[in-house]
Amino acid sequence: MTGKRRPPIVGRYTQEELALASRNSGMPLEALRYDVTPAGLHYLLIHFDIPAADAGPWRVRIDGLVSRACTYSVAELQRLPARTLRVTMECAGNGRGQTSPRYPSMPWLEEGVSTAEWTGVPLSVLFAEIQLRQSAQEIVFHGADRGIDRGIEHSFSRSLSPVEAMRDGVLVAYAMNGQPLLPQHGAPLRLVVPDWYGMASVKWLERIEVIDHAFEGVQQTSSYHFRDAPGEKGVPCTRMRVNSLMAPPGIPDYYGRRRNLDAGPVEILGRAWSGDAPIRRVEFAVDGAWQDAVLDDPVGDHAWRRWTVRWSATPGTHELRCRATDETGAAQPLDPPWDVTGFGNNAAQRVEVLVR
Amino acid sequence: MTGKRRPPIVGRYTQEELALASRNSGMPLEALRYDVTPAGLHYLLIHFDIPAADAGPWRVRIDGLVSRACTYSVAELQRLPARTLRVTMECAGNGRGQTSPRYPSMPWLEEGVSTAEWTGVPLSVLFAEIQLRQSAQEIVFHGADRGIDRGIEHSFSRSLSPVEAMRDGVLVAYAMNGQPLLPQHGAPLRLVVPDWYGMASVKWLERIEVIDHAFEGVQQTSSYHFRDAPGEKGVPCTRMRVNSLMAPPGIPDYYGRRRNLDAGPVEILGRAWSGDAPIRRVEFAVDGAWQDAVLDDPVGDHAWRRWTVRWSATPGTHELRCRATDETGAAQPLDPPWDVTGFGNNAAQRVEVLVR
Repeated sequence: MTGKRRPPIVGRYTQEELALASRNSGMPLEALRYDVTPAGLHYLLIHFDIPAADAGPWRVRIDGLVSRACTYSVAELQRLPARTLRVTMECAGNGRGQTSPRYPSMPWLEEGVSTAEWTGVPLSVLFAEIQLRQSAQEIVFHGADRGIDRGIEHSFSRSLSPVEAMRDGVLVAYAMNGQPLLPQHGAPLRLVVPDWYGMASVKWLERIEVIDHAFEGVQQTSSYHFRDAPGEKGVPCTRMRVNSLMAPPGIPDYYGRRRNLDAGPVEILGRAWSGDAPIRRVEFAVDGAWQDAVLDDPVGDHAWRRWTVRWSATPGTHELRCRATDETGAAQPLDPPWDVTGFGNNAAQRVEVLVR
Repeated sequence: MTGKRRPPIVGRYTQEELALASRNSGMPLEALRYDVTPAGLHYLLIHFDIPAADAGPWRVRIDGLVSRACTYSVAELQRLPARTLRVTMECAGNGRGQTSPRYPSMPWLEEGVSTAEWTGVPLSVLFAEIQLRQSAQEIVFHGADRGIDRGIEHSFSRSLSPVEAMRDGVLVAYAMNGQPLLPQHGAPLRLVVPDWYGMASVKWLERIEVIDHAFEGVQQTSSYHFRDAPGEKGVPCTRMRVNSLMAPPGIPDYYGRRRNLDAGPVEILGRAWSGDAPIRRVEFAVDGAWQDAVLDDPVGDHAWRRWTVRWSATPGTHELRCRATDETGAAQPLDPPWDVTGFGNNAAQRVEVLVR
């Protein structure tokens, strides 16, 4: 697959899209019941192959425009002050599979979001020991995962400004939900950048490089941009747009996953999140009639917020939707926002239920 | 979705198939490198929703044609003699997504197989305390996962004959890879039936019922049969057909996952398994020229066998294949065997590589 851009798709899904969906598992929506997503249910977006990494000899190198280049083993990092943070992470391409025309990439329907408890060393702690030189402009995080995208061979790398990188909560993480990182989540070391879409949280972290210019890697300048038209420079994907999901009520049909529910009172539960600001409000609709949901107390600055609503289900087919608003006033749109490569689709979820 | 049979599909994949693939994660093929598949990389086939189960109050009930009906908590089971077994498990529908026409169901390409170490109580130990009555004909294992398939609402249930159920290695398992079962793998209790396709290993096990007739549940008599034509009674899926996979060499292209490799010597590694007998031979082909692979020593009676082969890759595009033969003489076919609902596709894998 060479060439910079792949032609868009309309209608059914290609075998390439299916193969990506088979590798990159989503979080089954009933797992919205868990405050912290259990191991193996956290969504995955792995651009290339999972590297064969061994925690023993692994070292992350810090170099470039720093007071002294150095490396840290996992054991050395574990002796530095640690922090554990509950972080909701979402793939920037979440919802792409529901857009039309559709860019050929991972066709998430809605399940590319999860919450984990990450433990690691704040990057600001590391960079208290190793100073940035005056000319430092960006910090590049290099992963060990290597492959080809848009015709260019590269390892997965992303940069942050020093201000973003030193922000409270940015971690070099070695544990997830109290266990060493799993291979698919970046073992033995990864970056975790709360509030941003998942691409910023570089997995299999092997090098942190400080540079005096804007980083121009494929994943920084070509992918992960909002664009109205092909060929535009675009606007980088950064913080997660306000979004919400409900756990579909009732029981599913195996094929089609359509929901079946008994008439009567039912509690619907969901989660809402935004990378920009706390959640202010969640609304829930049955057949277009909106009402406010009840928000639980927040459980952290970087984690989704639980909400519930009671519904007296009446026989027939109904469309359920939910929509969150954050403290900036940003609200989810009812229809997918247009984006050439299908990033940032935070349209209000639709769940069809058949009440018996 | 009502009616017994769904019409077959040709060509690109439906949104229903994609939604199933997003929920039911496959094992990324690079994970063939691990003898035991790490947590969260083991394939999943969850017919309905993951039940909200709590290990504390959970009890599995044993009743029907037994000397005395009784229940066991997880803690009570953990006090009985335990066994840990390494088991390769494969979905009976593995490979369905590569068949044409294709039955509308989980469209596995090839990644619906994994190996775990299960710990639990042998069923034969449980049934040494509770005797079967003379009239016992089948033992039914009921899971807590409930939904609708082919128009019929049911909980996922499967039966075994007493002889199969008491076979060495059949476990009521409470741990996987040394940890309590994860929610998606049947927490807190599941059945593990080595050598059989995965549907026999009922998850979220809440009842073991002994009956005096052939069990006629949807998942026993309607689904999971090999059929040449719609409407046939068919032959039940039981033991896994001989099969093998290689970890595709080189590095992938992001979209399409096509492999790119440098010219020169490369070691290819893979795994081979059969539910019927030990693996006798694995062959590997480059562009149709077959050679024998080297088999590692077996690592258990119920686990896949590692194999390797060295290849001097020459520039150009090549097709790699592998094919296993077991001790019964059964060998993988080169083309998918025909089955109406796409079960048991053990055709030899194809991997296209571009050598530079």
